[in-house]
Amino acid sequence: MEPLIIAGREFYSRLFTGTGKFSSTEMMENALLASGSELVTVALKRVEMDNKADDMLRHLSHPRINLLPNTSGVRTAKEAVYAAQLAREALETNWIKLEIHPDPRYLMPDPVETLLAAQELVKLGFVVLPYVHADPVLCKRLEDAGTAAVMPLGAPIGSNKGLKTFDFLEIIIAQSNIPVIVDAGIGSPSHAAQAMEMGASAVLVNTAIAVARNPVQMAAAFKAGVEAGRMAYEAGLPVSSQQAVASSPLIAFLDEA
Amino acid sequence: MEPLIIAGREFYSRLFTGTGKFSSTEMMENALLASGSELVTVALKRVEMDNKADDMLRHLSHPRINLLPNTSGVRTAKEAVYAAQLAREALETNWIKLEIHPDPRYLMPDPVETLLAAQELVKLGFVVLPYVHADPVLCKRLEDAGTAAVMPLGAPIGSNKGLKTFDFLEIIIAQSNIPVIVDAGIGSPSHAAQAMEMGASAVLVNTAIAVARNPVQMAAAFKAGVEAGRMAYEAGLPVSSQQAVASSPLIAFLDEA
Amino acid sequence: MEPLIIAGREFYSRLFTGTGKFSSTEMMENALLASGSELVTVALKRVEMDNKADDMLRHLSHPRINLLPNTSGVRTAKEAVYAAQLAREALETNWIKLEIHPDPRYLMPDPVETLLAAQELVKLGFVVLPYVHADPVLCKRLEDAGTAAVMPLGAPIGSNKGLKTFDFLEIIIAQSNIPVIVDAGIGSPSHAAQAMEMGASAVLVNTAIAVARNPVQMAAAFKAGVEAGRMAYEAGLPVSSQQAVASSPLIAFLDEA
Amino acid sequence: MEPLIIAGREFYSRLFTGTGKFSSTEMMENALLASGSELVTVALKRVEMDNKADDMLRHLSHPRINLLPNTSGVRTAKEAVYAAQLAREALETNWIKLEIHPDPRYLMPDPVETLLAAQELVKLGFVVLPYVHADPVLCKRLEDAGTAAVMPLGAPIGSNKGLKTFDFLEIIIAQSNIPVIVDAGIGSPSHAAQAMEMGASAVLVNTAIAVARNPVQMAAAFKAGVEAGRMAYEAGLPVSSQQAVASSPLIAFLDEA
Repeated sequence: MEPLIIAGREFYSRLFTGTGKFSSTEMMENALLASGSELVTVALKRVEMDNKADDMLRHLSHPRINLLPNTSGVRTAKEAVYAAQLAREALETNWIKLEIHPDPRYLMPDPVETLLAAQELVKLGFVVLPYVHADPVLCKRLEDAGTAAVMPLGAPIGSNKGLKTFDFLEIIIAQSNIPVIVDAGIGSPSHAAQAMEMGASAVLVNTAIAVARNPVQMAAAFKAGVEAGRMAYEAGLPVSSQQAVASSPLIAFLDEA
Repeated sequence: MEPLIIAGREFYSRLFTGTGKFSSTEMMENALLASGSELVTVALKRVEMDNKADDMLRHLSHPRINLLPNTSGVRTAKEAVYAAQLAREALETNWIKLEIHPDPRYLMPDPVETLLAAQELVKLGFVVLPYVHADPVLCKRLEDAGTAAVMPLGAPIGSNKGLKTFDFLEIIIAQSNIPVIVDAGIGSPSHAAQAMEMGASAVLVNTAIAVARNPVQMAAAFKAGVEAGRMAYEAGLPVSSQQAVASSPLIAFLDEA
Repeated sequence: MEPLIIAGREFYSRLFTGTGKFSSTEMMENALLASGSELVTVALKRVEMDNKADDMLRHLSHPRINLLPNTSGVRTAKEAVYAAQLAREALETNWIKLEIHPDPRYLMPDPVETLLAAQELVKLGFVVLPYVHADPVLCKRLEDAGTAAVMPLGAPIGSNKGLKTFDFLEIIIAQSNIPVIVDAGIGSPSHAAQAMEMGASAVLVNTAIAVARNPVQMAAAFKAGVEAGRMAYEAGLPVSSQQAVASSPLIAFLDEA
Repeated sequence: MEPLIIAGREFYSRLFTGTGKFSSTEMMENALLASGSELVTVALKRVEMDNKADDMLRHLSHPRINLLPNTSGVRTAKEAVYAAQLAREALETNWIKLEIHPDPRYLMPDPVETLLAAQELVKLGFVVLPYVHADPVLCKRLEDAGTAAVMPLGAPIGSNKGLKTFDFLEIIIAQSNIPVIVDAGIGSPSHAAQAMEMGASAVLVNTAIAVARNPVQMAAAFKAGVEAGRMAYEAGLPVSSQQAVASSPLIAFLDEA
């Protein structure tokens, strides 16, 4: 499989993960290692920034794992920019997952604040990966603003509903010149595989792994699902057709026997 | 992952495959090996029965591969029973994939002839795996008749449309005491993973592998998809929910900073 | 709209209804009148056969309403034939809705017993309307056996899930020479309209009307939905397309102002 | 059915229509009259503004029909505001359907420019109905900006694909205090009925009527579909359930005979 390149960095895993909802940091560490993930989002809130021995960070300290701090919890572009700056200082990375969701119930991202923040953060030298609704025009404007990727949602965060935005993801992927990472809503390996099959560059999964009965095995399942989807995409999936086409010969062999 | 047991035989791969539509028997062999499949259907028509050096059979001669002759091409129970007997003699196996589809256009299986043939073949000592519509009552009656598994369809053969019978497969799986193998319509690894996630015992894939631009890589993709789905099933998939649930903490850390 | 003809009888309404689950026989009567339905199924069990003044029958006694007794409750072809004969005597009609569902949980019809019973009932002079799974081959065999129509299910009875068998209904409609009436699972007028748009001859609705907060208005809603779908079918629905096509002119008028 | 109130004006029809793609202005007039529509969008481009005897406008001159000029063709907020002002002068209405789609291929609306234009137009005294992606946060912000309604899309314009944004329309409707009008993608009466059943205030349909083989009958079909869906919504639709629930009694009457 081809590596994925974001802002010049190569990734050999197309499964990005998060750190929320795990029952323990040990469980989190084991699941993330099983996932093979090379990019892991962390909420700044979870990190004790002045504590170098922070428990969560310690469990994320692996050569292959890159941290992607996110701005979860902010409600405006201004707050997002401030949060990103704090994160850069604390975690020593200029990568930032930009997420601005003013509504505490559905956690849907705000398109206007997100674009504003993205424009500002790009100017400030950040590598910006914005979490957005599956809005083709917004994704194009973010690309124009210089973001390193776009992260459209498949369904509401934590809903595990899959690719409810399928028709719009298709358009986004077709017209994007930067990586498209499907984020939110992916509840099973089949969802992840479907996103990869349609040409997404990567997926981000958190809830479905963290709350599984066996998070480590679920992480391995998602790893396999993402690889399955990507391999199929590269191998050339056939299109679906309306009519049946036999795999086996239909002429009754009995007549010919 | 747990092995799958059918009629006392253990399978470590839950991806069954077919032999139709490949561009060459060499390509077929390489793809089947990449798939890891341990059960491969062959149409009797394709086998030159009195030719021990038959090209197709030679390419299927691997320790791990078991042959599953099918009755494709027959239109009635009587023809199916005759075909099964020929296959048993020619291929030296009492396993038979029973498929009776009188209609050459949509290739849908005939429920009445299939049940009749299954009853007869079980009496004759066959291990019967019938290909059927995703009809919960029919599947239960086939189980009562002593078939070793049921093979309900996901969508018309060769359509690559996926699990269009989802709601009925759920019922079939819930009430079955024998393995349920989803056959027909599976067009991508995500479809295969979905079938496994919902608790299917295995899937049979042919067209989507055979007609891919790169059949060997596609076979590997399906192998990964099936394993992903099965691992997820065993690891305990979370249910989908209506409302968003944050993976990351929402309380604005800025207020607390 | 064209009338629907079944066994030589003309229907001006394509909404068939049932009599179960209403809170009272008065409510049932008012809802059925609001529905405009001309064919109403009754379970023999509900009718006190030796009581000419039976409450339910009295409320169904309207010039426009034809009764369609059903065999609900039977488990075999033999029981169905006996039930049909009782119904013919009691209700003075040779029309029979044939339904055989041995399983009390999912109420799915038995394909084999249904075909057997249909063959026998046709010989006995009945006008047979069999309730079946959306199985294209079975529907064709019932047509060959001389049934007056076929009644494939959209989803499990009472589930209100809509046309979960869409892909198979399409095939059934395409190849049928007798009316196709979608029965079971239709939970809202949009489902009914969808069935009509795809070319179904009629739909049968019971639960969704009977258990609505306002069954009379819901009956009127289904009447409108069925008419909407049928009108659209006759008016020639456009196909859906992948790409956007503007309804409004796109050339910026400002440039030309 | 309850009337719909937008900006103090009462509507008795919940089917809004457009004027594009009809084969002639006579056909358009007849179809719009058959639709019962009281609000009809017109692209400014189509109107010869200094010609009082403009052919299109003459055919829209009916007491029941209110004109809703749209800004189709503009690409920025600034252009939209200018277009709205021209429309107000030309058509003597302060109602405006705000649509800004910079991309000529998929015609998706721009969220940022749309919010900017809406804020400005509200200040200028317009009754603003913005066409937007089914983005819950954007819809809420438009409501906060004082728009009279929101018009989220169901699918790409002219695609006839139906409610591909279903999960997001549900959220938008649940949290909106202003009318929600589903616009774009509605290709059949069943789609329109579904939108109304889920609680949409109205739908806007153009392409599916205009390009039908018989636009007048299709307009009547959509009228019926919208009324069916609205009646069902008001009558209280039952929820769908996983398991079958019999409409007819199941206890075998034969045992009791």
